[in-house]
Order: sequence, then structure tokens, then C-alpha cells
Amino acid sequence: MEVLTKYLNLRTKGELDMIDITESVAKAISETSIRNGIVTIFVPGSTGALTTIEYEPGLLKDFPEMLERIAPKNINYEHEKTWHDHNGHSHVRASLIGPSLTIPFKDKRLTLGTWQQVVFIELDIHSRTREIVLQIIGE
Amino acid sequence: MEVLTKYLNLRTKGELDMIDITESVAKAISETSIRNGIVTIFVPGSTGALTTIEYEPGLLKDFPEMLERIAPKNINYEHEKTWHDHNGHSHVRASLIGPSLTIPFKDKRLTLGTWQQVVFIELDIHSRTREIVLQIIGE
Amino acid sequence: MEVLTKYLNLRTKGELDMIDITESVAKAISETSIRNGIVTIFVPGSTGALTTIEYEPGLLKDFPEMLERIAPKNINYEHEKTWHDHNGHSHVRASLIGPSLTIPFKDKRLTLGTWQQVVFIELDIHSRTREIVLQIIGE
Repeated sequence: MEVLTKYLNLRTKGELDMIDITESVAKAISETSIRNGIVTIFVPGSTGALTTIEYEPGLLKDFPEMLERIAPKNINYEHEKTWHDHNGHSHVRASLIGPSLTIPFKDKRLTLGTWQQVVFIELDIHSRTREIVLQIIGE
Repeated sequence: MEVLTKYLNLRTKGELDMIDITESVAKAISETSIRNGIVTIFVPGSTGALTTIEYEPGLLKDFPEMLERIAPKNINYEHEKTWHDHNGHSHVRASLIGPSLTIPFKDKRLTLGTWQQVVFIELDIHSRTREIVLQIIGE
Repeated sequence: MEVLTKYLNLRTKGELDMIDITESVAKAISETSIRNGIVTIFVPGSTGALTTIEYEPGLLKDFPEMLERIAPKNINYEHEKTWHDHNGHSHVRASLIGPSLTIPFKDKRLTLGTWQQVVFIELDIHSRTREIVLQIIGE
């Protein structure tokens, strides 16, 4: 059994950019000698999130529209009163989706479905650089 | 330390079927020689999800009603324009709830509360067969 | 490789109390001899949840307001018909946010961002005692 830490460095294009990181995660696993285990993908930061989705242009609009229904951009947020950075909705959305995703792999392959991709979602209101942590555990 | 992969095969009854898989997960752990560890339960596919809930008939209606508020079935989804499969809302709901759930176990027992069950939620619009992955890690 | 189980005992102040458990989780890891690994934090029970958030007074109001939009307290819940305990909305909210959070640590430090704290969210309608499970795996 072994634990290995890898990092993915991303440059997001701005609010609601959804980046397909499936191949990068698969590559990180392939570069280790671990055959079977889990990878915990984690976002350090409180305005980004991770999930899986069928990565096609329609859903890249539909998912953000759902976020706009549950945490609209143009309502008042108490967060704004302290920080004046206009991203109260970003924080609320990120905390609901969550910063962590754990995926099994077997014989070096992630157990994803064919139409299921791993995505990082930029929820902050501008382009950012992000360093995602991959903690790979297995044997 | 060891890693073992098990599978649960389910036949769902249709949209919003919530299946209690607690006993199946517990049984999978009991069949291994691992006493203490974690199980990562994972749905391959982008229209199913996992969480825990008190499994009683009322909540099996209340939880879907919440999903209908945040991602209604009868609004327009961009996903539909590409795929014409009427399940844009299914994808959006699945990505929000998430495809992965990690639960500790100690002395071979899942650390669940008494009124807390592990459920697979079918979010696609028809009955499907599902193969859920259980990655069991521990010693 | 090793697996160690620790517990956090909390006393919540009532509905929507959000408790910053970051330091307690960090302390639990520091008390072990494990340097690199993951900690799975888990809530036994179906009316509590875990996530990360920037722990500042504004967001401690904004996040609950989002929950009130998606699962309002004062609508009818089927759960109520069976149990008469007035917490149908608590269950629905808890199942959406989720009971489990897995965070990597490296050189004994959680890989959190500077403005990102781990929170337990009390979703039940009154003050409760809670025992949170920390399953620490690594080497």
C-alpha cells in the first residue's frame, strides 16, 4: 500500500468555467505504480467545486442555470457586507456542491461510466489559477 | 492493508426510485477480511447518485420534491437540443448530489446512525440496470 | 499504512448552527504517526452534514438562506405525517449536502486553502450532541 500526492494546475477562464480533468487524473494514476485504489481529488479554496457530469455543451449551460436558481448572483449576500468582493453566491454554490470527490480505480482505470467526466467548476467571478490535489492511495 | 473491489448489481424501477443498499454494502464488507477502513461507493454513469437518508416512505417523496424545485422536469434544457433524450434534469440533479460516497467502518461495522441508510437514487427517466462499485480499503 | 479511528464530540446550539471543526480535525491527525493520507469525516445521523466554507459571519447566514430556498421550513413534508417531529426539511437538506467529506493531508497538514474551513452543519431543529467519526488512513 502506498500514498502518493499529485497536483493539477489549471487556469480557469472565468465564472462557471467547467474544466474536464478526467484525462489529467487518469494520467496521474498511470504515472504511479499503484494498480488498485482510490483517488481523492480536492480543491483547496472555497469558491471552486468538483463533480462528475456528461461533458457536452448543453449540460455546461444547464448545470450553471440550476446554480443560478438556487443561489442567484443578483440578490443580497451578507458576505458582501464584510468583503465587498461580489462573490457571496460563489461561496454558497461551492459549499453545496463540495470540494472533494473520491473515485475508485481498478487495474489502473478509473471506474467512470462512458459518458461521465470529472469536472472542476470555477465558481469565483473571475479567471483564476487553481492547484487541485490528487491523493492516490492503493497497492 | 488491502484494497478489494466489489460490485452491487441493481435493477431500478424508474425515475426517482431510491434503493436502500445499506445491507448490501455491509454484507460486502463482512465477506472480506478487512476489519477497519473505508468503503468508497461509486456510481459509474451520469444520471445516478448516492447519499444517506432516513429510509421511510415520507422522505422518499420529500427528497424528490426538493429535486423538482431545483431542477424541474418540465423546463427547457440545452442538453435536449443535442440528445433528445428528455433527461437534462436527470443529469443536473445527479451532478449536484454527486456520484461518490465514502463511509468509514470499524470492527466490520459501518459507522452509520440508527436512522441513516445508504441509498442509490435513479435519476434517469426510466428503469435501468446499474452496477455500483464498492472500493474497500483497510486492514 | 495504517487506519486510525478518532471521534469529535460536539454540542450544537440549534438549527443551522455551523461549527468550525478544522482545528479539531488537524489536531486528531497530529496525534497520530501518519504523515500522508486522507481523513474521511463522517456524520452518523440523517440530520447533520459536512462541507467546507469560508468561515465568516456573512456566509453563516447566506448558506442557510440558500437552504431555505431549496427546502423551506414551512411547507408540507410527507415525513411529518409519519413522525410529527417537524424536521422533514432537515432531512432533505442533510441528504443533499451529504454526510461525508474526505480531505487529503501531506506532511501532517490538511490540504485546505487559507480561507477554507471544515464545518459541521446542524440541520435538526434543536440543539443536539453529535459524535463525528474521523477515519484516518495513510502512512
